[in-house]
Amino acid sequence: MKIVMATGTFDIIHPGHGYYLEESKKVGGKDSKLVVVVARDSTVRSKKRVPVVDEKQRLEVVKMIKFVNEAYLGNENDMFKIVKEIKPDIITIGSDQNYDITNLKKELTDRGIHTEVVKIEGYKKGQLDSTCKIIKKIKGMEFDENIFKEC
Amino acid sequence: MKIVMATGTFDIIHPGHGYYLEESKKVGGKDSKLVVVVARDSTVRSKKRVPVVDEKQRLEVVKMIKFVNEAYLGNENDMFKIVKEIKPDIITIGSDQNYDITNLKKELTDRGIHTEVVKIEGYKKGQLDSTCKIIKKIKGMEFDENIFKEC
Repeated sequence: MKIVMATGTFDIIHPGHGYYLEESKKVGGKDSKLVVVVARDSTVRSKKRVPVVDEKQRLEVVKMIKFVNEAYLGNENDMFKIVKEIKPDIITIGSDQNYDITNLKKELTDRGIHTEVVKIEGYKKGQLDSTCKIIKKIKGMEFDENIFKEC
Repeated sequence: MKIVMATGTFDIIHPGHGYYLEESKKVGGKDSKLVVVVARDSTVRSKKRVPVVDEKQRLEVVKMIKFVNEAYLGNENDMFKIVKEIKPDIITIGSDQNYDITNLKKELTDRGIHTEVVKIEGYKKGQLDSTCKIIKKIKGMEFDENIFKEC
Protein backbone atom coordinates (compact mmCIF):
# COMPACT_ATOMS: atom_id res chain seq x y z
CA MET A 1 0.00 0.00 0.00
CA LYS A 2 1.49 3.28 -1.10
CA ILE A 3 1.19 6.42 0.97
CA VAL A 4 0.56 9.57 -1.05
CA MET A 5 0.91 12.97 0.58
CA ALA A 6 -0.86 16.06 -0.76
CA THR A 7 -0.61 19.54 0.74
CA GLY A 8 -2.39 22.87 0.56
CA THR A 9 -4.27 25.68 2.26
CA PHE A 10 -7.81 24.57 1.31
CA ASP A 11 -9.27 27.88 2.43
CA ILE A 12 -12.51 27.83 0.44
CA ILE A 13 -13.18 24.51 -1.26
CA HIS A 14 -13.63 24.47 -5.05
CA PRO A 15 -13.54 21.73 -7.72
CA GLY A 16 -9.78 22.23 -8.24
CA HIS A 17 -9.21 20.80 -4.76
CA GLY A 18 -11.28 17.74 -5.60
CA TYR A 19 -9.38 17.23 -8.84
CA TYR A 20 -6.01 17.52 -7.08
CA LEU A 21 -6.96 15.06 -4.35
CA GLU A 22 -8.60 12.54 -6.68
CA GLU A 23 -5.61 12.59 -9.05
CA SER A 24 -3.19 12.36 -6.11
CA LYS A 25 -4.93 9.22 -4.92
CA LYS A 26 -4.81 7.77 -8.45
CA VAL A 27 -1.03 8.30 -8.64
CA GLY A 28 -0.63 5.89 -5.73
CA GLY A 29 -2.90 3.26 -7.23
CA LYS A 30 -6.12 1.69 -6.10
CA ASP A 31 -5.11 0.71 -2.58
CA SER A 32 -3.09 3.79 -1.77
CA LYS A 33 -3.63 5.88 1.33
CA LEU A 34 -4.02 9.61 0.73
CA VAL A 35 -2.74 11.74 3.60
CA VAL A 36 -3.34 15.48 3.32
CA VAL A 37 -1.32 18.13 5.14
CA VAL A 38 -3.22 21.36 5.68
CA ALA A 39 -1.12 24.52 6.03
CA ARG A 40 -1.11 26.27 9.39
CA ASP A 41 -2.62 29.76 9.69
CA SER A 42 0.81 31.24 10.40
CA THR A 43 2.28 29.62 7.28
CA VAL A 44 -0.57 30.87 5.07
CA ARG A 45 -0.18 34.34 6.53
CA SER A 46 3.54 34.48 5.86
CA LYS A 47 3.45 32.96 2.37
CA LYS A 48 0.14 34.00 0.86
CA ARG A 49 -2.39 36.12 2.75
CA VAL A 50 -4.59 36.03 5.83
CA PRO A 51 -6.72 32.88 5.59
CA VAL A 52 -10.49 33.38 5.67
CA VAL A 53 -11.17 30.09 7.44
CA ASP A 54 -8.98 29.11 10.38
CA GLU A 55 -6.79 25.99 10.34
CA LYS A 56 -9.11 23.94 12.55
CA GLN A 57 -12.09 24.40 10.21
CA ARG A 58 -9.97 23.99 7.06
CA LEU A 59 -8.77 20.65 8.43
CA GLU A 60 -12.33 19.59 9.24
CA VAL A 61 -13.51 20.38 5.71
CA VAL A 62 -10.59 18.54 4.08
CA LYS A 63 -11.55 15.45 6.09
CA MET A 64 -15.04 15.67 4.54
CA ILE A 65 -13.67 15.23 1.01
CA LYS A 66 -13.79 11.90 -0.80
CA PHE A 67 -10.39 10.27 -1.51
CA VAL A 68 -8.93 11.70 1.74
CA ASN A 69 -7.95 8.93 4.16
CA GLU A 70 -6.21 11.06 6.77
CA ALA A 71 -5.52 14.76 7.21
CA TYR A 72 -3.27 16.69 9.59
CA LEU A 73 -2.13 20.23 10.21
CA GLY A 74 1.42 20.99 9.10
CA ASN A 75 4.26 22.08 11.31
CA GLU A 76 4.71 25.80 11.84
CA ASN A 77 8.47 25.90 11.65
CA ASP A 78 9.73 22.91 9.71
CA MET A 79 7.73 21.70 6.70
CA PHE A 80 9.85 18.55 6.50
CA LYS A 81 9.00 17.38 10.02
CA ILE A 82 5.58 16.04 9.04
CA VAL A 83 7.03 14.43 5.88
CA LYS A 84 9.32 12.40 8.14
CA GLU A 85 6.34 11.37 10.25
CA ILE A 86 4.01 10.46 7.36
CA LYS A 87 6.80 8.76 5.36
CA PRO A 88 5.06 9.12 2.00
CA ASP A 89 6.09 7.07 -1.04
CA ILE A 90 4.87 9.93 -3.21
CA ILE A 91 4.35 13.66 -2.65
CA THR A 92 2.00 15.31 -5.13
CA ILE A 93 2.17 18.97 -6.11
CA GLY A 94 -0.99 20.72 -7.32
CA SER A 95 -1.05 22.35 -10.74
CA ASP A 96 -1.33 25.82 -9.16
CA GLN A 97 1.39 25.20 -6.55
CA ASN A 98 4.59 26.97 -7.51
CA TYR A 99 7.20 24.67 -6.02
CA ASP A 100 10.58 24.36 -7.69
CA ILE A 101 10.39 20.58 -7.92
CA THR A 102 14.10 19.98 -8.60
CA ASN A 103 14.95 22.03 -5.55
CA LEU A 104 12.30 20.30 -3.42
CA LYS A 105 13.67 16.88 -4.39
CA LYS A 106 17.17 18.01 -3.40
CA GLU A 107 15.94 19.35 -0.07
CA LEU A 108 14.19 16.04 0.63
CA THR A 109 17.26 13.96 -0.31
CA ASP A 110 19.49 16.19 1.83
CA ARG A 111 17.29 15.28 4.78
CA GLY A 112 17.43 11.57 4.01
CA ILE A 113 13.83 11.51 2.76
CA HIS A 114 13.47 9.30 -0.29
CA THR A 115 10.10 9.98 -1.87
CA GLU A 116 8.84 10.48 -5.37
CA VAL A 117 7.54 13.97 -6.25
CA VAL A 118 4.75 14.12 -8.83
CA LYS A 119 3.20 17.26 -10.30
CA ILE A 120 -0.55 16.94 -10.91
CA GLU A 121 -1.37 18.56 -14.24
CA GLY A 122 -4.34 18.93 -16.50
CA TYR A 123 -6.93 20.68 -14.37
CA LYS A 124 -9.64 22.10 -16.58
CA LYS A 125 -10.06 25.51 -15.07
CA GLY A 126 -13.42 26.90 -14.08
CA GLN A 127 -14.73 30.36 -13.26
CA LEU A 128 -14.15 30.21 -9.51
CA ASP A 129 -11.24 27.78 -9.38
CA SER A 130 -9.30 29.45 -6.57
CA THR A 131 -10.06 30.84 -3.14
CA CYS A 132 -8.60 34.12 -4.39
CA LYS A 133 -11.22 34.34 -7.16
CA ILE A 134 -14.02 33.53 -4.71
CA ILE A 135 -12.85 36.28 -2.31
CA LYS A 136 -12.54 38.71 -5.22
CA LYS A 137 -16.05 37.89 -6.40
CA ILE A 138 -17.55 38.34 -2.92
CA LYS A 139 -15.70 41.66 -2.49
CA GLY A 140 -17.34 42.87 -5.69
CA MET A 141 -20.86 41.62 -4.96
CA GLU A 142 -23.57 43.68 -3.35
CA PHE A 143 -25.79 41.95 -0.82
CA ASP A 144 -28.94 43.11 0.87
CA GLU A 145 -27.75 44.09 4.38
CA ASN A 146 -30.74 42.24 5.84
CA ILE A 147 -29.26 38.84 5.03
CA PHE A 148 -26.43 39.50 7.48
CA LYS A 149 -28.82 40.12 10.34
CA GLU A 150 -29.53 36.42 10.53
CA CYS A 151 -25.93 35.31 10.74
CA MET B 1 -31.37 -0.38 0.67
CA LYS B 2 -32.94 2.88 1.77
CA ILE B 3 -32.73 6.04 -0.27
CA VAL B 4 -32.17 9.19 1.78
CA MET B 5 -32.61 12.58 0.16
CA ALA B 6 -30.90 15.71 1.50
CA THR B 7 -31.23 19.19 0.04
CA GLY B 8 -29.53 22.56 0.23
CA THR B 9 -27.71 25.43 -1.43
CA PHE B 10 -24.16 24.38 -0.49
CA ASP B 11 -22.78 27.75 -1.58
CA ILE B 12 -19.54 27.75 0.39
CA ILE B 13 -18.81 24.45 2.08
CA HIS B 14 -18.33 24.38 5.86
CA PRO B 15 -18.36 21.62 8.50
CA GLY B 16 -22.12 22.02 9.03
CA HIS B 17 -22.66 20.61 5.55
CA GLY B 18 -20.52 17.59 6.36
CA TYR B 19 -22.40 17.02 9.60
CA TYR B 20 -25.79 17.25 7.85
CA LEU B 21 -24.78 14.84 5.10
CA GLU B 22 -23.09 12.34 7.42
CA GLU B 23 -26.06 12.29 9.78
CA SER B 24 -28.48 12.02 6.84
CA LYS B 25 -26.67 8.94 5.63
CA LYS B 26 -26.75 7.47 9.16
CA VAL B 27 -30.54 7.89 9.35
CA GLY B 28 -30.88 5.49 6.41
CA GLY B 29 -28.55 2.92 7.91
CA LYS B 30 -25.27 1.45 6.76
CA ASP B 31 -26.27 0.45 3.23
CA SER B 32 -28.38 3.48 2.44
CA LYS B 33 -27.89 5.60 -0.64
CA LEU B 34 -27.61 9.34 -0.02
CA VAL B 35 -28.93 11.46 -2.86
CA VAL B 36 -28.41 15.22 -2.57
CA VAL B 37 -30.50 17.82 -4.36
CA VAL B 38 -28.68 21.11 -4.89
CA ALA B 39 -30.85 24.22 -5.22
CA ARG B 40 -30.89 25.99 -8.58
CA ASP B 41 -29.45 29.51 -8.84
CA SER B 42 -32.92 30.93 -9.55
CA THR B 43 -34.36 29.24 -6.44
CA VAL B 44 -31.55 30.54 -4.21
CA ARG B 45 -32.01 34.02 -5.66
CA SER B 46 -35.73 34.07 -4.98
CA LYS B 47 -35.60 32.52 -1.50
CA LYS B 48 -32.33 33.62 0.02
CA ARG B 49 -29.82 35.81 -1.84
CA VAL B 50 -27.64 35.81 -4.93
CA PRO B 51 -25.44 32.70 -4.72
CA VAL B 52 -21.68 33.29 -4.80
CA VAL B 53 -20.93 30.02 -6.58
CA ASP B 54 -23.09 29.00 -9.54
CA GLU B 55 -25.20 25.85 -9.52
CA LYS B 56 -22.84 23.86 -11.74
CA GLN B 57 -19.88 24.36 -9.40
CA ARG B 58 -21.99 23.90 -6.25
CA LEU B 59 -23.11 20.53 -7.65
CA GLU B 60 -19.51 19.56 -8.46
CA VAL B 61 -18.36 20.37 -4.93
CA VAL B 62 -21.24 18.44 -3.31
CA LYS B 63 -20.20 15.40 -5.34
CA MET B 64 -16.72 15.69 -3.78
CA ILE B 65 -18.08 15.19 -0.26
CA LYS B 66 -17.89 11.84 1.53
CA PHE B 67 -21.26 10.14 2.23
CA VAL B 68 -22.74 11.56 -1.02
CA ASN B 69 -23.66 8.79 -3.45
CA GLU B 70 -25.45 10.89 -6.03
CA ALA B 71 -26.23 14.58 -6.47
CA TYR B 72 -28.53 16.46 -8.83
CA LEU B 73 -29.73 20.00 -9.42
CA GLY B 74 -33.30 20.66 -8.31
CA ASN B 75 -36.18 21.69 -10.51
CA GLU B 76 -36.69 25.40 -11.01
CA ASN B 77 -40.45 25.42 -10.83
CA ASP B 78 -41.65 22.39 -8.91
CA MET B 79 -39.63 21.21 -5.90
CA PHE B 80 -41.68 18.01 -5.73
CA LYS B 81 -40.79 16.88 -9.26
CA ILE B 82 -37.35 15.59 -8.28
CA VAL B 83 -38.75 13.95 -5.14
CA LYS B 84 -41.00 11.87 -7.40
CA GLU B 85 -37.99 10.93 -9.52
CA ILE B 86 -35.65 10.05 -6.63
CA LYS B 87 -38.40 8.27 -4.65
CA PRO B 88 -36.66 8.66 -1.28
CA ASP B 89 -37.63 6.57 1.74
CA ILE B 90 -36.49 9.42 3.94
CA ILE B 91 -36.06 13.16 3.40
CA THR B 92 -33.74 14.86 5.88
CA ILE B 93 -33.98 18.51 6.89
CA GLY B 94 -30.87 20.32 8.11
CA SER B 95 -30.85 21.94 11.54
CA ASP B 96 -30.64 25.41 9.97
CA GLN B 97 -33.35 24.77 7.36
CA ASN B 98 -36.58 26.46 8.32
CA TYR B 99 -39.12 24.12 6.84
CA ASP B 100 -42.50 23.71 8.49
CA ILE B 101 -42.22 19.94 8.70
CA THR B 102 -45.92 19.25 9.38
CA ASN B 103 -46.82 21.30 6.33
CA LEU B 104 -44.13 19.65 4.21
CA LYS B 105 -45.44 16.18 5.16
CA LYS B 106 -48.94 17.26 4.18
CA GLU B 107 -47.76 18.64 0.86
CA LEU B 108 -45.94 15.38 0.14
CA THR B 109 -48.95 13.24 1.07
CA ASP B 110 -51.25 15.42 -1.05
CA ARG B 111 -49.03 14.57 -4.02
CA GLY B 112 -49.06 10.85 -3.27
CA ILE B 113 -45.47 10.87 -2.02
CA HIS B 114 -45.06 8.65 1.02
CA THR B 115 -41.73 9.37 2.61
CA GLU B 116 -40.47 9.88 6.11
CA VAL B 117 -39.25 13.39 7.00
CA VAL B 118 -36.46 13.59 9.58
CA LYS B 119 -34.97 16.73 11.08
CA ILE B 120 -31.21 16.50 11.68
CA GLU B 121 -30.41 18.12 15.01
CA GLY B 122 -27.47 18.53 17.28
CA TYR B 123 -24.94 20.36 15.16
CA LYS B 124 -22.24 21.81 17.36
CA LYS B 125 -21.91 25.24 15.87
CA GLY B 126 -18.59 26.73 14.90
CA GLN B 127 -17.36 30.23 14.12
CA LEU B 128 -17.96 30.09 10.37
CA ASP B 129 -20.79 27.60 10.22
CA SER B 130 -22.77 29.24 7.42
CA THR B 131 -22.05 30.68 3.99
CA CYS B 132 -23.59 33.90 5.26
CA LYS B 133 -20.97 34.19 8.03
CA ILE B 134 -18.16 33.45 5.58
CA ILE B 135 -19.40 36.18 3.21
CA LYS B 136 -19.76 38.60 6.13
CA LYS B 137 -16.23 37.84 7.32
CA ILE B 138 -14.75 38.34 3.82
CA LYS B 139 -16.67 41.62 3.42
CA GLY B 140 -15.06 42.85 6.64
CA MET B 141 -11.51 41.70 5.89
CA GLU B 142 -8.87 43.84 4.26
CA PHE B 143 -6.62 42.18 1.75
CA ASP B 144 -3.47 43.44 0.06
CA GLU B 145 -4.69 44.38 -3.44
CA ASN B 146 -1.65 42.62 -4.91
CA ILE B 147 -3.05 39.19 -4.12
CA PHE B 148 -5.90 39.80 -6.57
CA LYS B 149 -3.52 40.48 -9.43
CA GLU B 150 -2.71 36.81 -9.64
CA CYS B 151 -6.27 35.60 -9.86
